[in-house]
Amino acid sequence: MKFTRFTHKGEIHYGVVTGDDISVIEGDLYEDWSYSGEVLPLEQVQLLAPVEPSKIIGIGANYVGSTEERPEELPEIPVFFFKPSSSMIGPEAEIIIPDLVGEVKFESELAVVIGKETRNVAEEDVLDHIFGYTIGNDVTAPQFFHEDGHWTVGKSFDTFTPIGPYIETELDPSQVSVKADINGVETQNSPTNLMIVPLAHMVSYLSKVMTLEPGDVILTGSPLGAHFVKNQDVIECKIDEIGTLRNRTIKSSVSVES
Amino acid sequence: MKFTRFTHKGEIHYGVVTGDDISVIEGDLYEDWSYSGEVLPLEQVQLLAPVEPSKIIGIGANYVGSTEERPEELPEIPVFFFKPSSSMIGPEAEIIIPDLVGEVKFESELAVVIGKETRNVAEEDVLDHIFGYTIGNDVTAPQFFHEDGHWTVGKSFDTFTPIGPYIETELDPSQVSVKADINGVETQNSPTNLMIVPLAHMVSYLSKVMTLEPGDVILTGSPLGAHFVKNQDVIECKIDEIGTLRNRTIKSSVSVES
Repeated sequence: MKFTRFTHKGEIHYGVVTGDDISVIEGDLYEDWSYSGEVLPLEQVQLLAPVEPSKIIGIGANYVGSTEERPEELPEIPVFFFKPSSSMIGPEAEIIIPDLVGEVKFESELAVVIGKETRNVAEEDVLDHIFGYTIGNDVTAPQFFHEDGHWTVGKSFDTFTPIGPYIETELDPSQVSVKADINGVETQNSPTNLMIVPLAHMVSYLSKVMTLEPGDVILTGSPLGAHFVKNQDVIECKIDEIGTLRNRTIKSSVSVES
Repeated sequence: MKFTRFTHKGEIHYGVVTGDDISVIEGDLYEDWSYSGEVLPLEQVQLLAPVEPSKIIGIGANYVGSTEERPEELPEIPVFFFKPSSSMIGPEAEIIIPDLVGEVKFESELAVVIGKETRNVAEEDVLDHIFGYTIGNDVTAPQFFHEDGHWTVGKSFDTFTPIGPYIETELDPSQVSVKADINGVETQNSPTNLMIVPLAHMVSYLSKVMTLEPGDVILTGSPLGAHFVKNQDVIECKIDEIGTLRNRTIKSSVSVES
Protein backbone atom coordinates (compact mmCIF):
# COMPACT_ATOMS: atom_id res chain seq x y z
CA MET A 1 0.00 0.00 0.00
CA LYS A 2 1.28 3.47 -0.89
CA PHE A 3 0.42 6.25 1.56
CA THR A 4 0.67 9.91 0.66
CA ARG A 5 0.27 13.21 2.47
CA PHE A 6 -0.90 16.15 0.42
CA THR A 7 -2.70 19.48 0.30
CA HIS A 8 -5.96 19.92 -1.54
CA LYS A 9 -8.00 23.13 -1.42
CA GLY A 10 -5.74 24.43 1.33
CA GLU A 11 -6.19 21.44 3.64
CA ILE A 12 -3.73 18.70 4.49
CA HIS A 13 -4.82 15.08 4.15
CA TYR A 14 -3.39 11.60 4.09
CA GLY A 15 -4.44 9.17 1.40
CA VAL A 16 -3.80 5.86 -0.33
CA VAL A 17 -2.44 6.01 -3.89
CA THR A 18 -3.91 3.63 -6.45
CA GLY A 19 -2.86 4.24 -10.03
CA ASP A 20 -3.50 7.92 -10.77
CA ASP A 21 -5.91 8.42 -7.87
CA ILE A 22 -5.75 9.09 -4.17
CA SER A 23 -8.35 7.65 -1.82
CA VAL A 24 -8.51 10.14 1.05
CA ILE A 25 -8.26 8.68 4.54
CA GLU A 26 -9.23 9.93 7.99
CA GLY A 27 -7.84 9.15 11.42
CA ASP A 28 -4.33 8.37 12.59
CA LEU A 29 -2.15 6.74 9.94
CA TYR A 30 -0.27 4.75 12.58
CA GLU A 31 -3.18 3.85 14.85
CA ASP A 32 -6.56 3.64 13.22
CA TRP A 33 -7.70 5.10 9.94
CA SER A 34 -10.54 4.65 7.47
CA TYR A 35 -11.42 5.80 3.97
CA SER A 36 -13.38 9.06 3.86
CA GLY A 37 -14.98 8.05 0.58
CA GLU A 38 -13.42 10.94 -1.34
CA VAL A 39 -11.22 10.06 -4.32
CA LEU A 40 -8.99 12.70 -5.93
CA PRO A 41 -6.86 12.60 -9.08
CA LEU A 42 -3.17 12.69 -8.11
CA GLU A 43 -2.60 15.53 -10.55
CA GLN A 44 -5.00 17.79 -8.63
CA VAL A 45 -3.12 17.73 -5.33
CA GLN A 46 0.22 18.95 -4.08
CA LEU A 47 2.22 16.15 -2.53
CA LEU A 48 3.93 16.81 0.80
CA ALA A 49 6.56 14.82 2.63
CA PRO A 50 4.51 11.77 3.69
CA VAL A 51 5.66 11.92 7.31
CA GLU A 52 5.54 14.28 10.31
CA PRO A 53 8.50 12.97 12.28
CA SER A 54 9.51 13.94 15.80
CA LYS A 55 13.00 12.85 14.73
CA ILE A 56 14.85 12.40 11.46
CA ILE A 57 17.97 10.32 12.05
CA GLY A 58 20.70 9.76 9.50
CA ILE A 59 23.67 7.39 9.46
CA GLY A 60 27.10 8.30 8.14
CA ALA A 61 28.78 6.69 5.13
CA ASN A 62 26.99 3.35 5.14
CA TYR A 63 27.55 1.75 1.74
CA VAL A 64 30.45 -0.11 0.22
CA GLY A 65 31.04 -0.40 -3.52
CA SER A 66 30.90 -4.19 -3.54
CA THR A 67 30.14 -6.93 -1.04
CA GLU A 68 33.86 -7.83 -0.82
CA GLU A 69 34.59 -4.38 0.62
CA ARG A 70 32.28 -4.88 3.56
CA PRO A 71 34.25 -4.56 6.84
CA GLU A 72 34.50 -7.74 8.89
CA GLU A 73 33.11 -6.09 11.99
CA LEU A 74 30.32 -3.58 12.38
CA PRO A 75 31.37 -0.25 13.90
CA GLU A 76 30.89 -0.27 17.66
CA ILE A 77 29.36 3.22 17.54
CA PRO A 78 27.84 3.95 14.13
CA VAL A 79 27.91 7.61 13.10
CA PHE A 80 24.37 8.89 13.60
CA PHE A 81 23.15 12.45 13.21
CA PHE A 82 19.85 14.31 13.44
CA LYS A 83 18.30 16.48 10.76
CA PRO A 84 15.70 18.99 11.99
CA SER A 85 12.08 18.79 10.84
CA SER A 86 12.51 22.38 9.62
CA SER A 87 14.80 21.01 6.90
CA MET A 88 12.11 18.70 5.47
CA ILE A 89 10.38 19.33 2.15
CA GLY A 90 8.19 17.19 -0.07
CA PRO A 91 8.35 16.00 -3.67
CA GLU A 92 8.83 18.72 -6.32
CA ALA A 93 9.65 21.40 -3.71
CA GLU A 94 12.80 23.39 -4.33
CA ILE A 95 16.07 22.72 -2.53
CA ILE A 96 17.19 26.25 -1.72
CA ILE A 97 20.95 26.75 -1.55
CA PRO A 98 21.53 29.89 0.52
CA ASP A 99 24.09 32.46 -0.58
CA LEU A 100 26.41 31.57 2.27
CA VAL A 101 26.54 27.94 1.09
CA GLY A 102 28.85 27.36 -1.83
CA GLU A 103 28.17 23.79 -2.83
CA VAL A 104 25.84 21.04 -1.75
CA LYS A 105 25.86 17.29 -2.23
CA PHE A 106 22.77 15.15 -2.72
CA GLU A 107 22.41 11.66 -1.24
CA SER A 108 19.62 9.29 -2.25
CA GLU A 109 18.61 7.01 0.62
CA LEU A 110 16.11 4.36 1.63
CA ALA A 111 14.15 5.88 4.53
CA VAL A 112 12.55 3.77 7.27
CA VAL A 113 9.27 5.06 8.73
CA ILE A 114 8.67 3.86 12.30
CA GLY A 115 5.15 2.56 12.97
CA LYS A 116 4.90 2.35 16.74
CA GLU A 117 6.68 3.37 19.89
CA THR A 118 9.95 1.49 19.72
CA ARG A 119 12.25 1.08 22.68
CA ASN A 120 14.96 -1.50 23.19
CA VAL A 121 13.87 -3.77 20.34
CA ALA A 122 15.88 -6.83 19.28
CA GLU A 123 17.10 -7.07 15.69
CA GLU A 124 14.75 -9.94 14.90
CA ASP A 125 11.75 -7.87 15.99
CA VAL A 126 12.64 -4.67 14.15
CA LEU A 127 10.37 -5.31 11.14
CA ASP A 128 7.33 -5.39 13.47
CA HIS A 129 8.07 -1.79 14.39
CA ILE A 130 8.42 -0.44 10.85
CA PHE A 131 5.36 1.07 9.20
CA GLY A 132 6.88 1.35 5.75
CA TYR A 133 9.58 2.86 3.60
CA THR A 134 10.05 6.04 1.67
CA ILE A 135 12.95 7.86 0.03
CA GLY A 136 15.08 10.60 1.54
CA ASN A 137 17.60 12.98 0.03
CA ASP A 138 20.18 13.90 2.66
CA VAL A 139 21.33 17.21 1.17
CA THR A 140 24.58 18.30 2.75
CA ALA A 141 26.89 21.34 2.70
CA PRO A 142 30.27 19.84 3.63
CA GLN A 143 31.85 23.29 4.00
CA PHE A 144 29.80 23.60 7.21
CA PHE A 145 31.14 20.39 8.68
CA HIS A 146 33.18 21.25 11.76
CA GLU A 147 36.83 20.24 11.61
CA ASP A 148 36.25 18.19 14.78
CA GLY A 149 33.73 16.05 12.93
CA HIS A 150 30.39 17.63 13.81
CA TRP A 151 27.99 17.56 10.87
CA THR A 152 24.97 19.25 12.42
CA VAL A 153 25.18 22.66 10.74
CA GLY A 154 26.09 21.32 7.30
CA LYS A 155 23.03 19.06 7.21
CA SER A 156 20.44 21.32 8.85
CA PHE A 157 19.66 24.07 6.38
CA ASP A 158 15.99 24.57 5.52
CA THR A 159 14.95 22.43 2.50
CA PHE A 160 17.94 20.08 2.93
CA THR A 161 15.80 16.99 3.63
CA PRO A 162 13.43 16.14 0.77
CA ILE A 163 11.33 13.09 1.69
CA GLY A 164 8.80 11.16 -0.38
CA PRO A 165 6.99 10.65 -2.63
CA TYR A 166 5.08 7.89 -0.79
CA ILE A 167 5.35 5.49 2.12
CA GLU A 168 5.29 1.97 0.70
CA THR A 169 4.21 -0.54 3.33
CA GLU A 170 4.72 -3.69 1.26
CA LEU A 171 8.42 -3.66 0.60
CA ASP A 172 11.25 -6.04 1.35
CA PRO A 173 14.03 -3.56 2.11
CA SER A 174 16.67 -6.19 1.39
CA GLN A 175 15.44 -6.57 -2.20
CA VAL A 176 15.57 -3.02 -3.52
CA SER A 177 18.12 -0.76 -5.16
CA VAL A 178 18.69 2.88 -4.23
CA LYS A 179 19.23 5.07 -7.28
CA ALA A 180 19.68 8.69 -8.23
CA ASP A 181 19.60 10.59 -11.51
CA ILE A 182 20.98 14.10 -11.86
CA ASN A 183 19.42 15.89 -14.83
CA GLY A 184 18.40 12.50 -16.21
CA VAL A 185 21.82 10.86 -15.88
CA GLU A 186 22.13 7.98 -13.41
CA THR A 187 24.75 8.61 -10.72
CA GLN A 188 23.73 6.16 -8.00
CA ASN A 189 22.44 2.60 -8.25
CA SER A 190 23.22 0.20 -5.42
CA PRO A 191 21.31 -2.70 -3.94
CA THR A 192 20.70 -2.32 -0.21
CA ASN A 193 22.84 -5.40 0.47
CA LEU A 194 25.82 -3.07 0.07
CA MET A 195 24.90 -1.37 3.35
CA ILE A 196 27.56 -1.68 6.05
CA VAL A 197 25.31 -1.42 9.11
CA PRO A 198 22.21 -3.44 8.17
CA LEU A 199 18.82 -1.86 8.64
CA ALA A 200 17.72 -4.18 11.46
CA HIS A 201 20.93 -3.58 13.39
CA MET A 202 20.59 0.17 12.90
CA VAL A 203 17.01 0.38 14.20
CA SER A 204 17.74 -1.99 17.09
CA TYR A 205 20.81 0.01 18.09
CA LEU A 206 18.94 3.32 17.95
CA SER A 207 16.05 1.89 19.97
CA LYS A 208 18.43 1.08 22.81
CA VAL A 209 19.49 4.73 22.92
CA MET A 210 16.22 6.55 22.35
CA THR A 211 12.52 5.91 22.04
CA LEU A 212 11.51 5.93 18.39
CA GLU A 213 8.01 7.20 17.74
CA PRO A 214 5.42 6.63 14.99
CA GLY A 215 6.39 8.67 11.96
CA ASP A 216 10.05 8.96 12.95
CA VAL A 217 12.35 8.61 9.95
CA ILE A 218 15.69 6.84 9.69
CA LEU A 219 17.76 7.61 6.62
CA THR A 220 19.78 4.45 6.07
CA GLY A 221 22.75 5.98 4.25
CA SER A 222 23.74 6.87 0.74
CA PRO A 223 25.22 4.55 -1.90
CA LEU A 224 28.45 5.57 -3.58
CA GLY A 225 28.03 8.13 -6.34
CA ALA A 226 26.68 11.09 -4.41
CA HIS A 227 28.40 14.26 -5.53
CA PHE A 228 28.04 18.01 -5.69
CA VAL A 229 25.11 19.54 -7.52
CA LYS A 230 24.81 23.06 -8.88
CA ASN A 231 22.09 25.61 -9.36
CA GLN A 232 19.01 24.35 -11.25
CA ASP A 233 20.00 20.70 -11.17
CA VAL A 234 17.15 18.22 -11.07
CA ILE A 235 17.79 15.48 -8.52
CA GLU A 236 15.70 12.33 -8.81
CA CYS A 237 16.10 9.88 -5.94
CA LYS A 238 14.56 6.58 -6.94
CA ILE A 239 13.59 3.28 -5.47
CA ASP A 240 11.50 1.59 -8.17
CA GLU A 241 9.13 -0.08 -5.70
CA ILE A 242 8.41 3.26 -3.97
CA GLY A 243 8.64 5.92 -6.66
CA THR A 244 10.73 8.95 -7.56
CA LEU A 245 11.51 11.85 -5.25
CA ARG A 246 12.24 14.75 -7.60
CA ASN A 247 13.54 18.16 -6.46
CA ARG A 248 15.31 20.98 -8.22
CA THR A 249 18.10 23.00 -6.61
CA ILE A 250 17.88 26.76 -6.66
CA LYS A 251 20.50 29.20 -5.52
CA SER A 252 18.92 31.70 -3.16
CA SER A 253 19.59 35.36 -3.76
CA VAL A 254 18.44 36.39 -0.29
CA SER A 255 21.16 38.50 1.25
CA VAL A 256 22.55 37.15 4.49
CA GLU A 257 24.45 39.25 6.97
CA SER A 258 27.59 37.55 8.22
CA MET B 1 6.39 36.19 34.39
CA LYS B 2 7.04 32.51 35.13
CA PHE B 3 5.28 30.02 32.88
CA THR B 4 4.88 26.37 33.79
CA ARG B 5 3.55 23.26 32.09
CA PHE B 6 2.09 20.59 34.35
CA THR B 7 -0.32 17.71 34.77
CA HIS B 8 -3.30 17.93 37.07
CA LYS B 9 -5.97 15.21 37.29
CA GLY B 10 -4.46 13.53 34.25
CA GLU B 11 -4.60 16.59 31.99
CA ILE B 12 -1.76 18.76 30.76
CA HIS B 13 -2.02 22.53 31.20
CA TYR B 14 0.11 25.63 31.00
CA GLY B 15 -0.01 28.18 33.78
CA VAL B 16 1.55 31.25 35.35
CA VAL B 17 3.34 30.75 38.67
CA THR B 18 2.77 33.36 41.40
CA GLY B 19 4.18 32.49 44.80
CA ASP B 20 2.90 29.01 45.67
CA ASP B 21 0.06 29.05 43.16
CA ILE B 22 -0.46 28.43 39.48
CA SER B 23 -3.02 30.42 37.51
CA VAL B 24 -4.10 28.08 34.74
CA ILE B 25 -4.07 29.50 31.22
CA GLU B 26 -5.76 28.53 27.96
CA GLY B 27 -4.75 29.07 24.36
CA ASP B 28 -1.37 29.12 22.68
CA LEU B 29 1.46 30.22 24.97
CA TYR B 30 3.30 31.81 22.05
CA GLU B 31 0.35 33.34 20.23
CA ASP B 32 -2.65 34.21 22.31
CA TRP B 33 -3.56 32.98 25.77
CA SER B 34 -5.86 33.96 28.61
CA TYR B 35 -6.43 32.95 32.21
CA SER B 36 -8.99 30.18 32.64
CA GLY B 37 -9.86 31.45 36.12
CA GLU B 38 -8.67 28.26 37.80
CA VAL B 39 -5.92 28.62 40.44
CA LEU B 40 -4.10 25.55 41.75
CA PRO B 41 -1.56 25.15 44.55
CA LEU B 42 1.86 24.33 43.07
CA GLU B 43 2.17 21.37 45.43
CA GLN B 44 -0.90 19.70 43.91
CA VAL B 45 0.46 19.41 40.38
CA GLN B 46 3.24 17.54 38.67
CA LEU B 47 5.54 19.88 36.80
CA LEU B 48 6.58 18.95 33.27
CA ALA B 49 9.28 20.38 31.06
CA PRO B 50 7.76 23.80 30.27
CA VAL B 51 8.32 23.47 26.51
CA GLU B 52 7.27 21.24 23.60
CA PRO B 53 10.12 21.92 21.20
CA SER B 54 10.38 20.83 17.58
CA LYS B 55 14.14 21.15 18.12
CA ILE B 56 16.51 21.15 21.07
CA ILE B 57 19.86 22.56 19.99
CA GLY B 58 23.00 22.50 22.11
CA ILE B 59 26.35 24.19 21.68
CA GLY B 60 29.69 22.58 22.49
CA ALA B 61 32.10 23.75 25.20
CA ASN B 62 31.05 27.39 25.41
CA TYR B 63 32.43 28.79 28.67
CA VAL B 64 35.85 29.98 29.73
CA GLY B 65 37.01 30.07 33.33
CA SER B 66 37.67 33.81 33.31
CA THR B 67 37.14 36.70 30.94
CA GLU B 68 40.88 36.79 30.15
CA GLU B 69 40.66 33.30 28.67
CA ARG B 70 38.11 34.31 26.08
CA PRO B 71 39.46 33.65 22.55
CA GLU B 72 40.04 36.75 20.44
CA GLU B 73 37.91 35.46 17.60
CA LEU B 74 34.64 33.59 17.66
CA PRO B 75 34.74 30.15 16.05
CA GLU B 76 33.73 30.32 12.40
CA ILE B 77 31.56 27.22 12.79
CA PRO B 78 30.41 26.79 16.39
CA VAL B 79 29.88 23.15 17.47
CA PHE B 80 26.13 22.64 17.50
CA PHE B 81 24.26 19.41 18.12
CA PHE B 82 20.64 18.29 18.42
CA LYS B 83 19.08 16.45 21.33
CA PRO B 84 15.87 14.56 20.52
CA SER B 85 12.58 15.50 22.20
CA SER B 86 12.42 11.87 23.39
CA SER B 87 15.32 12.69 25.73
CA MET B 88 13.41 15.48 27.49
CA ILE B 89 12.10 15.17 31.04
CA GLY B 90 10.73 17.68 33.52
CA PRO B 91 11.67 18.75 37.04
CA GLU B 92 11.97 15.95 39.63
CA ALA B 93 11.80 13.20 36.98
CA GLU B 94 14.54 10.58 37.15
CA ILE B 95 17.57 10.59 34.88
CA ILE B 96 17.80 6.92 33.96
CA ILE B 97 21.31 5.65 33.25
CA PRO B 98 20.91 2.49 31.17
CA ASP B 99 23.01 -0.57 31.91
CA LEU B 100 25.02 -0.12 28.74
CA VAL B 101 26.07 3.36 29.85
CA GLY B 102 28.85 3.39 32.39
CA GLU B 103 29.10 7.01 33.42
CA VAL B 104 27.26 10.21 32.66
CA LYS B 105 28.12 13.86 33.08
CA PHE B 106 25.66 16.60 33.98
CA GLU B 107 25.83 20.11 32.51
CA SER B 108 23.76 23.00 33.90
CA GLU B 109 22.83 25.48 31.18
CA LEU B 110 20.83 28.61 30.49
CA ALA B 111 18.19 27.58 27.93
CA VAL B 112 16.68 30.01 25.43
CA VAL B 113 13.02 29.45 24.48
CA ILE B 114 12.18 30.81 21.03
CA GLY B 115 8.93 32.82 20.85
CA LYS B 116 8.18 33.12 17.15
CA GLU B 117 9.24 31.81 13.78
CA THR B 118 12.82 32.97 13.45
CA ARG B 119 14.70 32.95 10.18
CA ASN B 120 17.79 34.93 9.24
CA VAL B 121 17.62 37.33 12.18
CA ALA B 122 20.35 39.89 12.89
CA GLU B 123 22.11 39.82 16.28
CA GLU B 124 20.55 43.10 17.36
CA ASP B 125 17.05 41.72 16.74
CA VAL B 126 17.52 38.37 18.49
CA LEU B 127 15.89 39.41 21.78
CA ASP B 128 12.63 40.17 19.94
CA HIS B 129 12.46 36.49 18.96
CA ILE B 130 13.05 35.04 22.42
CA PHE B 131 10.01 34.18 24.53
CA GLY B 132 11.92 33.53 27.72
CA TYR B 133 14.54 31.47 29.48
CA THR B 134 14.60 28.22 31.37
CA ILE B 135 17.28 25.81 32.59
CA GLY B 136 18.55 22.72 30.83
CA ASN B 137 20.71 19.84 31.98
CA ASP B 138 22.63 18.45 29.02
CA VAL B 139 23.26 14.95 30.37
CA THR B 140 25.94 13.23 28.35
CA ALA B 141 27.54 9.78 28.10
CA PRO B 142 31.00 10.56 26.67
CA GLN B 143 31.75 6.87 26.12
CA PHE B 144 29.24 7.04 23.24
CA PHE B 145 30.99 9.92 21.55
CA HIS B 146 32.32 8.70 18.22
CA GLU B 147 36.09 8.95 17.82
CA ASP B 148 35.48 11.11 14.74
CA GLY B 149 33.77 13.71 16.89
CA HIS B 150 30.08 12.85 16.55
CA TRP B 151 28.21 13.37 19.81
CA THR B 152 24.69 12.38 18.76
CA VAL B 153 24.44 8.98 20.43
CA GLY B 154 26.11 10.05 23.68
CA LYS B 155 23.64 12.89 24.18
CA SER B 156 20.42 11.24 22.99
CA PHE B 157 19.45 8.66 25.58
CA ASP B 158 15.92 8.93 26.98
CA THR B 159 15.80 11.21 30.07
CA PHE B 160 19.14 12.88 29.18
CA THR B 161 17.61 16.34 28.76
CA PRO B 162 15.91 17.63 31.91
CA ILE B 163 14.37 21.06 31.26
CA GLY B 164 12.63 23.46 33.65
CA PRO B 165 11.31 24.28 36.13
CA TYR B 166 9.76 27.41 34.55
CA ILE B 167 10.11 29.74 31.60
CA GLU B 168 10.98 33.18 32.97
CA THR B 169 10.08 35.90 30.48
CA GLU B 170 11.52 38.85 32.41
CA LEU B 171 15.20 38.02 32.53
CA ASP B 172 18.31 39.77 31.34
CA PRO B 173 20.40 36.78 30.20
CA SER B 174 23.60 38.80 30.50
CA GLN B 175 23.01 39.37 34.22
CA VAL B 176 22.59 35.84 35.57
CA SER B 177 24.83 33.07 36.84
CA VAL B 178 24.49 29.42 35.89
CA LYS B 179 25.00 27.12 38.87
CA ALA B 180 24.81 23.46 39.79
CA ASP B 181 24.82 21.56 43.05
CA ILE B 182 25.49 17.84 43.26
CA ASN B 183 24.05 16.37 46.46
CA GLY B 184 23.96 19.87 47.91
CA VAL B 185 27.56 20.78 47.06
CA GLU B 186 28.09 23.57 44.54
CA THR B 187 30.11 22.45 41.50
CA GLN B 188 29.22 25.11 38.93
CA ASN B 189 28.76 28.83 39.32
CA SER B 190 29.59 31.06 36.37
CA PRO B 191 28.14 34.33 35.15
CA THR B 192 26.92 34.15 31.55
CA ASN B 193 29.53 36.73 30.51
CA LEU B 194 31.98 33.81 30.50
CA MET B 195 30.26 32.39 27.42
CA ILE B 196 32.51 32.21 24.37
CA VAL B 197 29.84 32.47 21.66
CA PRO B 198 27.39 35.07 23.01
CA LEU B 199 23.71 34.24 23.07
CA ALA B 200 22.71 36.79 20.41
CA HIS B 201 25.41 35.55 18.04
CA MET B 202 24.37 31.95 18.64
CA VAL B 203 20.69 32.51 17.86
CA SER B 204 21.45 34.72 14.86
CA TYR B 205 23.87 32.14 13.46
CA LEU B 206 21.39 29.30 13.92
CA SER B 207 18.59 31.33 12.32
CA LYS B 208 20.66 31.67 9.15
CA VAL B 209 20.90 27.90 8.94
CA MET B 210 17.45 26.77 10.01
CA THR B 211 14.04 28.15 10.85
CA LEU B 212 13.61 28.29 14.62
CA GLU B 213 10.06 27.77 15.79
CA PRO B 214 8.07 28.83 18.88
CA GLY B 215 9.02 26.57 21.77
CA ASP B 216 12.35 25.55 20.27
CA VAL B 217 15.09 25.35 22.88
CA ILE B 218 18.73 26.39 22.61
CA LEU B 219 21.02 25.17 25.37
CA THR B 220 23.71 27.83 25.56
CA GLY B 221 26.53 25.70 26.95
CA SER B 222 27.81 24.55 30.29
CA PRO B 223 30.12 26.47 32.65
CA LEU B 224 33.27 24.78 33.85
CA GLY B 225 32.75 22.31 36.68
CA ALA B 226 30.52 19.71 35.01
CA HIS B 227 31.71 16.24 35.92
CA PHE B 228 30.60 12.65 36.18
CA VAL B 229 27.72 11.73 38.45
CA LYS B 230 26.89 8.32 39.88
CA ASN B 231 23.79 6.40 40.78
CA GLN B 232 21.34 8.24 43.08
CA ASP B 233 23.07 11.60 42.81
CA VAL B 234 20.80 14.62 43.10
CA ILE B 235 21.62 17.22 40.44
CA GLU B 236 20.29 20.72 40.99
CA CYS B 237 20.79 23.07 38.07
CA LYS B 238 20.11 26.61 39.24
CA ILE B 239 19.66 30.07 37.87
CA ASP B 240 18.39 32.11 40.82
CA GLU B 241 16.08 34.27 38.70
CA ILE B 242 14.43 31.18 37.15
CA GLY B 243 14.48 28.48 39.80
CA THR B 244 16.02 25.08 40.45
CA LEU B 245 15.83 22.13 38.09
CA ARG B 246 16.27 19.08 40.33
CA ASN B 247 16.65 15.51 39.07
CA ARG B 248 18.05 12.34 40.58
CA THR B 249 20.08 9.82 38.62
CA ILE B 250 19.09 6.19 38.76
CA LYS B 251 20.93 3.27 37.27
CA SER B 252 18.55 1.18 35.20
CA SER B 253 18.53 -2.55 35.74
CA VAL B 254 16.70 -3.27 32.49
CA SER B 255 18.67 -5.89 30.61
CA VAL B 256 19.80 -4.83 27.18
CA GLU B 257 20.87 -7.23 24.50
CA SER B 258 24.05 -6.15 22.76
